[in-house]
Amino acid sequence: MTQNIIVQKYGGTSVGTTERIKAVAERIKDCTKNGFSVVVVVSAMGKTTDVLVDLAKELSSNPSKREMDMLLSTGEQVSIALLAIALHDTGIDAVSYTGSQIRMMTDGNFSNAKIANISTDRIISSLNENKVVIVAGFQGIDEDDNITTLGRGGSDTSAVALAAVLGTRDCEIYTDVDGVYTADPRMISAAKKLNEISYDEMLELARLGAGVLHSRSVEFAKNFKIRLHVRSSFSLENGTIVMPMEEMVEKYVVSGITMKQDEAKVTIRDIPDKPGISAKLFNALGSCNIYVNMIVQSTGHDNRASISFTVKKEDLAKTKELCTELNKDFGGSSVEAKENIAIVSAVGVGMLSHYGVAGKMFGVLSGQNINIEMISTSEIGISCVIDSMYAELAAKALHKSFIEEI
Amino acid sequence: MTQNIIVQKYGGTSVGTTERIKAVAERIKDCTKNGFSVVVVVSAMGKTTDVLVDLAKELSSNPSKREMDMLLSTGEQVSIALLAIALHDTGIDAVSYTGSQIRMMTDGNFSNAKIANISTDRIISSLNENKVVIVAGFQGIDEDDNITTLGRGGSDTSAVALAAVLGTRDCEIYTDVDGVYTADPRMISAAKKLNEISYDEMLELARLGAGVLHSRSVEFAKNFKIRLHVRSSFSLENGTIVMPMEEMVEKYVVSGITMKQDEAKVTIRDIPDKPGISAKLFNALGSCNIYVNMIVQSTGHDNRASISFTVKKEDLAKTKELCTELNKDFGGSSVEAKENIAIVSAVGVGMLSHYGVAGKMFGVLSGQNINIEMISTSEIGISCVIDSMYAELAAKALHKSFIEEI
Repeated sequence: MTQNIIVQKYGGTSVGTTERIKAVAERIKDCTKNGFSVVVVVSAMGKTTDVLVDLAKELSSNPSKREMDMLLSTGEQVSIALLAIALHDTGIDAVSYTGSQIRMMTDGNFSNAKIANISTDRIISSLNENKVVIVAGFQGIDEDDNITTLGRGGSDTSAVALAAVLGTRDCEIYTDVDGVYTADPRMISAAKKLNEISYDEMLELARLGAGVLHSRSVEFAKNFKIRLHVRSSFSLENGTIVMPMEEMVEKYVVSGITMKQDEAKVTIRDIPDKPGISAKLFNALGSCNIYVNMIVQSTGHDNRASISFTVKKEDLAKTKELCTELNKDFGGSSVEAKENIAIVSAVGVGMLSHYGVAGKMFGVLSGQNINIEMISTSEIGISCVIDSMYAELAAKALHKSFIEEI
Repeated sequence: MTQNIIVQKYGGTSVGTTERIKAVAERIKDCTKNGFSVVVVVSAMGKTTDVLVDLAKELSSNPSKREMDMLLSTGEQVSIALLAIALHDTGIDAVSYTGSQIRMMTDGNFSNAKIANISTDRIISSLNENKVVIVAGFQGIDEDDNITTLGRGGSDTSAVALAAVLGTRDCEIYTDVDGVYTADPRMISAAKKLNEISYDEMLELARLGAGVLHSRSVEFAKNFKIRLHVRSSFSLENGTIVMPMEEMVEKYVVSGITMKQDEAKVTIRDIPDKPGISAKLFNALGSCNIYVNMIVQSTGHDNRASISFTVKKEDLAKTKELCTELNKDFGGSSVEAKENIAIVSAVGVGMLSHYGVAGKMFGVLSGQNINIEMISTSEIGISCVIDSMYAELAAKALHKSFIEEI
C-alpha cells in the first residue's frame, strides 16, 4: 500500500533542546491528524556532533574513520529515542529505528558513505500499525554491518532517499531558516524568500556557498523528482520548494546572488604553452585532496599562458608549496597567491533563455569601479573573483540590479 | 582456536574522561604485549547515563522502555569508539562492536533483558587478525533487532557472558575500588581487602548492600565457573578474585560485615493465626513490584501472630497503605512502620562448618547494649535489624570481633 506518506527531516537546531523536541512532536502530531503517515528523519541535537568530535581529537590527531562513524552515529540515535518519547507523551504512537535497523545499506566509505539501498519492510509495517516512524539520519551500515555515516548534510540525503524508496513525492526539510533566499538576508536586507527554485539552481547555489541544503541530497531529489520543501521548524509559514524546473510557476532570470569568501586564488604566470601542463597540475592537486573551484587559463604573449584557480583558504599553503615544486618543471615565471578575494555569483535558470546576463553583471561591477580578476560561467551561473574588500558592495549592487529592480 | 584470551571490563569511572581512556588503552596495550588476546567490555563514560535519563524525564514522566534502551545504549557506543581511537593512537590495532554487531541476543524484556546467546564468529575473527576487540557492554538486541539493555550492572554481565562463550576462565572487572573488602572502608578503617571470595559470599554481600558487583553477573560467573578479578583501573595491584568455593585457599568464617540503611520495617501486629495470610500479604506486595528483603513472623499469645518485614524506604508509603487496606481483612491490631532501622550482617562460607557464629554475633551486639529487632539467617549469612542510630557502632564491633581479632 502507498498511503499518504510524508517524509520530514528535522535538523540539529530543530531538535536542539527538549523544548524544541516537544515542539517538533506537536508539529508531527498535527500532521498525523491531517491524515498523513509520517516518516521522520532527525539529526543529532544541536552541537552534539562537535562535542563528540572534540572528544575524539583529545585522543588522536587522526582518528580512524570507522570509529568516528561508530562515535558520531550515536548523536542521531539519541535524537530518535527522545523524539519517540516526546511523541508518546503527546499520545501519538511512534517507533524509532537506527540506520542498521532499517537496513540503510551504504558502501564502505566511512565518513562519506553513499546509500546503496534501503529496506522498506519494517517502515511500511510500522506505518501500517499507525505508528510514526522515526529514523536516524546521517547513518547507514555497510555489507559487513559496520556503521557508516553519509558526510556533511547526510541527514538531508537520508530523508530524500527514504522519500524515494517509499514512493512519496514530497519531502519536508525543517531547518533554522525559513527557506531559500535570493541572497543571504544577514548581508542583504532586501533579500526575498523564493517560493520555488529548481534543482539545478539549488545545486549551483550550494556550490557557490549558499548552503541551506547539501548538494548530494539535491542531486538525489533531482534524480527521483522529489519535491523538497525547505522550511522553518520555528514557524508555520511555507518555505521554498525545490522542484523540477519544468514544473515551476515562477521563473526568474536571476534567482540568487551569492558571495563566498573562504577561497583563495593561486596564479602560475607565464608558463610555456605546451600540452599536458594543466592536466599535470590539477591531477597533482586532486591527488592531494585539494578541491579546486574556479579555473581560468589566459593566453599571454610569446606562447606563454597563465593559469589561475581558486582553492579553499585552508588548502592554500599546501597548494602554493605544491605549485612551486611543479613550476620547477613547468618553467613559469612565478607562483602567486592571493587570499583576500571573494567570489560573487549570479544564479538563475532564466540565463538559459536570456542573453546578456553576463554583460549586465560586468556592467554593474564596473559601475562600482570594481575590478574583475577572474570570470567563470556555467549554464545557469556566472561567477566573478574580485578583491574581498568590495565583496559586500558588489553583492548588494548585483542584488539590486538583478532582483530588486525587476 | 582458543588462544590466550582475556576478557576485561572497564566501568564508567574507569573511562570517565579522555585522560582515563588513554590510561585504559595503555593498560590494554601492556596486556597484549604479554601475549594475550584481549576482549574489552566498556560502560558509558562517567555520568553519561544519568544525563540521558534526565533528558528523557524532561520529555515524559513514563518514557517507553524500548526507547529508553535505544537512548541509553548510545553511552556505551561512545565509549567503545573512543577507546578504539585511543588504542590506535598507541599503535595497537583494535575494533569496536555494538551489541547488535556481535549478535548479543537477548529476550525482549526492555531495560532488564537477559542474554540468550552471543555469536563469537566476528570476535574470534578479529582476534585472529591480532585486533583488540572492544564490545559495548550493557546492550544487546532481541530477535526483532530491537536494542535492549541488561539493567543495572549490565556491563559486568556482558563481560562474564563473553568470557563464557569464548571459553576463557578469567574475566577482569576494572572498577574504581581496588577489590572486595571485609567492610566498607569509608566506614571501618580497619577493613581489609580480600584476596579471594566465593560466588555465594559475593552474592550474599550484594544482596546485603555491598554493591561492587551486581548479582546477575556473579550468578553467571558461578554457572560457568569464571573467575572474576575485581580490581582498580587506577592501580596495578591485584584485587579480589571471585571464584568457586572449593578452589579457594583462604577461607574465613566471616569474610564480610555489611550495613544497609536504605530499608524500612513494617509490622502488622496480632493477626489471628489462620493459614494463607502471609501468602496473601506477600503476593499483594509482589504484584505491586515491592521488593521484600527480610521477613520474620513471631507467634504471640491467643493464637495471634505478628509479621515484620523490610522493604526499600522508597516503597514504604505504598507498602503501609497496602498493608492498612489488607489488614481490614486480616484483623490485626495495628500496622506499624519504622524508618530509622539498619540491617547489619555477617557473611562467610565458614559458617557452613562453624557453629556458634549467630550466638557470637548476638553476644557482640548485646555487649554494646544494642537491641535486635529482627533476625534472619541464610546458609552463609546472618542479618540483624537494629535501630539505625547504632548501625555504625554495631558494624565496627562485629568487624572487630569477627575479622580483626581472628
